Amino acid sequence: MDIFLQQAKKTSKKLALLDEHTRDNVLEDMAQALLDNCDYILEQNQKDIQDATTNNVKPNLLDRLLLNKDRIQGMSDSVREIAKLKSPLNQTQKGWISPDGLKINKISVPIGVIGIIYESRPNVTSECSALCFKSGNVCVLKGGKEAIHSNVAIVKVLCDVLKKHNIDANTISLLPDYSRDGVMNLIKQNKYLDLIIPRGGAEFIKFIEQNSNVPIIKQDKGVCHTFIDVHCSSKMAIDISVNAKTNRPSVCNAMECLLVHKDIANLMLPALKDRFDEEGTLLKGCEITRQYIDVQAACEDDFGKEFGDNILAIKVVDDVHSAIKHIEQYGSNHSECIVTNDINNANEFLASVDSACVYVNASTRFSDGFSFGFGGEIGISTSKLHARGPMGLDELVSYKYQIIGQGQIK
Amino acid sequence: MDIFLQQAKKTSKKLALLDEHTRDNVLEDMAQALLDNCDYILEQNQKDIQDATTNNVKPNLLDRLLLNKDRIQGMSDSVREIAKLKSPLNQTQKGWISPDGLKINKISVPIGVIGIIYESRPNVTSECSALCFKSGNVCVLKGGKEAIHSNVAIVKVLCDVLKKHNIDANTISLLPDYSRDGVMNLIKQNKYLDLIIPRGGAEFIKFIEQNSNVPIIKQDKGVCHTFIDVHCSSKMAIDISVNAKTNRPSVCNAMECLLVHKDIANLMLPALKDRFDEEGTLLKGCEITRQYIDVQAACEDDFGKEFGDNILAIKVVDDVHSAIKHIEQYGSNHSECIVTNDINNANEFLASVDSACVYVNASTRFSDGFSFGFGGEIGISTSKLHARGPMGLDELVSYKYQIIGQGQIK
Repeated sequence: MDIFLQQAKKTSKKLALLDEHTRDNVLEDMAQALLDNCDYILEQNQKDIQDATTNNVKPNLLDRLLLNKDRIQGMSDSVREIAKLKSPLNQTQKGWISPDGLKINKISVPIGVIGIIYESRPNVTSECSALCFKSGNVCVLKGGKEAIHSNVAIVKVLCDVLKKHNIDANTISLLPDYSRDGVMNLIKQNKYLDLIIPRGGAEFIKFIEQNSNVPIIKQDKGVCHTFIDVHCSSKMAIDISVNAKTNRPSVCNAMECLLVHKDIANLMLPALKDRFDEEGTLLKGCEITRQYIDVQAACEDDFGKEFGDNILAIKVVDDVHSAIKHIEQYGSNHSECIVTNDINNANEFLASVDSACVYVNASTRFSDGFSFGFGGEIGISTSKLHARGPMGLDELVSYKYQIIGQGQIK
Repeated sequence: MDIFLQQAKKTSKKLALLDEHTRDNVLEDMAQALLDNCDYILEQNQKDIQDATTNNVKPNLLDRLLLNKDRIQGMSDSVREIAKLKSPLNQTQKGWISPDGLKINKISVPIGVIGIIYESRPNVTSECSALCFKSGNVCVLKGGKEAIHSNVAIVKVLCDVLKKHNIDANTISLLPDYSRDGVMNLIKQNKYLDLIIPRGGAEFIKFIEQNSNVPIIKQDKGVCHTFIDVHCSSKMAIDISVNAKTNRPSVCNAMECLLVHKDIANLMLPALKDRFDEEGTLLKGCEITRQYIDVQAACEDDFGKEFGDNILAIKVVDDVHSAIKHIEQYGSNHSECIVTNDINNANEFLASVDSACVYVNASTRFSDGFSFGFGGEIGISTSKLHARGPMGLDELVSYKYQIIGQGQIK
């Protein structure tokens, strides 16, 4: 492991100096190689699917694991899109003359070697590889065990392109030891690794936080809230709430808890229930909610819970202040929305809610790199340092100060 | 401890919403309060000095610990300067319309609760407090044990001003438990602490890295290099080298190793030796160096060492590439300088050296927040994430996305 990471560190120094033109050509070739090797990748993916079927994996997990021609086309398109994005490197983020006459430029540079630990979807492998390559970073990938054949195949295809361009193949690599010990060893290697991006459940993130000596940017849970204020378009409020919950209930930017202003609860709750019933959503309401609609009782644990399913907790609150307080207590600082026509309440919500993404009159489902216009995403950070919210190429760089003097001394 | 930090977290929510005008008024009052309470602070400082004298502390440490009227005036001036700086909060770092028509603004916000662990100088206490307050962060300070009376006095003076303005006094606090256990407990509290800034020696930093579950921005060692290229002004080369080493040998941006191009070693080394001899610098040279000047032999350990003293390792190298390689192997990615008239070598050095601050023709001693024009500094980061190099107010903020829609759903 040590030699493997030592080599990765060494490669990162060379990779930082690669010119932009070559970088983009390599990415274009990778996009093509994914299509040219479609049959090989699908064949390897079938092995994973067979293993998963044998192990009675749930249908939704099986669907995440499955590749087909369309999905590989999608992976290829995504890599091509990343090739076309503006390079995040060598950008002058700031430049000024110091009091001593030094010309100081703050220039974006790669971070170095990045470890990414993620779940089963094999398309994450090509996307993270492409984003790291575009931003000049070496990546060490640890995907889900159940996707091992697919990931090995995808990385092989990408590395063959690297070799063709005389670039070290360990620019993109899979962690050789897939076991828990392997991960434990990885997160202790701050001599060689500059960053670890762990994506996963709360327990997993806690394990990484407690054991890593490498800096981490985590993608933790999302307990997103929507607050329907008293003055609002009720149609908009219902559309946004239903979309935020039901569009894709399993993802981190889906709503888990709906807060409704007490003065419109009598009108809003029955209308909401009708629409949620159409979507098959299981509703769990607070005591006041249950005075207006016939739903299950929410227990204390239902607030602050990431259901990850088509289930919604509903609470009636006094006003925008109570909504903000509830979010402060139960939220996970990911994405929250207020639906309102009142500019003062909108501004107070925007200022007071301490979340990565705070929305006025739009679904929390927009919290991702693509919707933000980043062209791709390496994850959605729930960390507060370095990167917060959707992370694209600009979040995959560090900086250095280049300082030009004329002999200045202190 | 838990309740103490829980309260700090709670206070941080309120502090984030304080208006800029009040913030600056409080800082002005703090600057005045330091002067008004000069006698009290000096009296308490004397207790620390007496304890240190009893414990036979070294004279240079005693000097770091000592306060007098001038130094308190300096502390007050620094707080007043910070009050006058532009607020780093509520700045729109970026703003755009997303493909879906969402108005997205990236706004700077406080980080939250910051733990700062530092060494003996009591003036750091008021400076860090002021920087954290200006940037809307609650700070938990752990200064050197030997400065405890001084720090308690300074924090008391600052907190009295907070109280006068009806701001929670735990906005600025000292860690109640000063023991190693206290620190160990602190760095495990990622539920309440958003960031720890540890400043100290390599062993201490390693301890924090291995045990903290709170994100850290470290101020680690500085093993700074200067490379004298073949084409350069020899006067400038000598002035910069002597300044970088001898201006203040104990600090992290002082030079520890001088690299000299082989083709000018015969002329440059004797001239350098004359000047360093005047400064009483102990020189340790590589084998080739010792062919030109009569100095101690440098052993392998002398390269990459932070002497922290008026001692310098010297090595003769083949060219700019060898210099870059040496720095890659032995440097600590802090600050490095090339003295050259050759624009190609300057550019190669700037691009290839992976340090926070890379200089052409200026002393590495300029790597600090004041010289950079930041008005103050919380430290010099040797981390690569979030902040690198001198850290001022702009490095003490996070951001959030404020997103305004017109009912958009996915």
